[in-house]
Amino acid sequence: MNIFVKFLMVIMVLFSGCIDTNDNSVLEVNSEQFSDVLYQVSTINALMEGLYDGFIPVSDLLTHGDFGIGTFDKLDGEMVVLDGICYQIKADGVAYTVENVTTPFAVVTWFENDETYYLNDMNISEFESYFESKFPSKNMIYAVKLTGNFSKIKTRSVSPQEKTYEKLADVVKNQSIFEFENVSGTCVGFWIPDFMSGLNVPLYHLHFITDDRTAGGHILDFEINSVEASFDITPEFYVILPTSEEYYGMEFSDNLENDIKIVEKQ
Amino acid sequence: MNIFVKFLMVIMVLFSGCIDTNDNSVLEVNSEQFSDVLYQVSTINALMEGLYDGFIPVSDLLTHGDFGIGTFDKLDGEMVVLDGICYQIKADGVAYTVENVTTPFAVVTWFENDETYYLNDMNISEFESYFESKFPSKNMIYAVKLTGNFSKIKTRSVSPQEKTYEKLADVVKNQSIFEFENVSGTCVGFWIPDFMSGLNVPLYHLHFITDDRTAGGHILDFEINSVEASFDITPEFYVILPTSEEYYGMEFSDNLENDIKIVEKQ
Repeated sequence: MNIFVKFLMVIMVLFSGCIDTNDNSVLEVNSEQFSDVLYQVSTINALMEGLYDGFIPVSDLLTHGDFGIGTFDKLDGEMVVLDGICYQIKADGVAYTVENVTTPFAVVTWFENDETYYLNDMNISEFESYFESKFPSKNMIYAVKLTGNFSKIKTRSVSPQEKTYEKLADVVKNQSIFEFENVSGTCVGFWIPDFMSGLNVPLYHLHFITDDRTAGGHILDFEINSVEASFDITPEFYVILPTSEEYYGMEFSDNLENDIKIVEKQ
Repeated sequence: MNIFVKFLMVIMVLFSGCIDTNDNSVLEVNSEQFSDVLYQVSTINALMEGLYDGFIPVSDLLTHGDFGIGTFDKLDGEMVVLDGICYQIKADGVAYTVENVTTPFAVVTWFENDETYYLNDMNISEFESYFESKFPSKNMIYAVKLTGNFSKIKTRSVSPQEKTYEKLADVVKNQSIFEFENVSGTCVGFWIPDFMSGLNVPLYHLHFITDDRTAGGHILDFEINSVEASFDITPEFYVILPTSEEYYGMEFSDNLENDIKIVEKQ
């Protein structure tokens, strides 16, 4: 057999490995197939009770969405995920890009705009009721994004906690508050229907990051100057419950609804 | 350039297409990767309010689990999914194997036994408290399977409904009741933690099918003679919310907890 034929046979053997005739076990995944899914790590009632040990790496979280909110191991700051980048707004008010940390609670999705409204000169209550009136249903989940200029925003972040962890309603008594005036940036978050209370924060839960991505936090209050406000209808949700001994042994508060109000808006 | 070199270049061009240097978009999927996930169609509060139009084909449902319960389009019978086969126990008490029908509410998982107990001579209350005492946590979801002999089982099924649909608590007033004595079969279902109420039936929700797969229904009561009782710890759940206009416009009962008790055990 001449060298050319032998070479041809070698090439054919090498080439044949590329032809996968049985692809039953391989499923192409791209963001479009898994859009419209809210991916959630842990539950709000576990976070409220003090389950602050991160157990899902942020790098893993980012494979489930490019938009969302949450917190970090030991409650070390407020999370904003925007355009696929995860920002950690720490208690010093500074936003850091992170990936090699874990989260004890986070909520993300692949943001796909369904409806957009141009809003001017609204306070937070006016925004909340106006925007809710635009939702097709109160029985649905929405990712919510506001981009533009705010005459005022008040945010908070918290310091990393040490064990034995206090409950969240107590931790926020020592939160750091940040006040912005005439600031441009993006509010990132969700609107959750009532029947998911216990799992997630009902109604609005929004975090903020400045356009230059240097500051932000969990939103306590704002006044809109001029924004583009969008929502993404999210009809599926996927929750990962913790399996730590600490979670297994937890008893959840009967006063959850009130505790959440304290934590979310004060 | 001699013919050999040209040929080599052609081969290299062909071969290069096989080398996928960017496999970020391909994810291997097999059932093991998606075990420990409870896959749920719709919510119990929507079903309670009369959302009986099926919207997920059973053939689709069976790609998400081989074990579970639910109902069918128009509330036409009680569903048992066992060993990957879907059974429809109709109001005549007969179990039919089905695939080309839709479901408005169903809950399935890939059953993987975590712990097994051999139980004798227990009524339903004794079973419920004993088995719960074996769970590692009240904050977790469990798939529950009992296989063996029952001295008595009482089950029910319902007839297909016509619009305008009544609420489920009213439909079950006309349920068909079936009583079995000294029967062998399998109880299939779930134990759902309290914080998921509104989404799913809290605590136990079990259906039954005989060993010969000819009869069964939603369990109202039983007395165990001798069974193998297993649970599967299920730390993840995935819910598909309906997106019909009917669901969008629904108002959910404030009396859900009581209505569920009526529907589940009477």
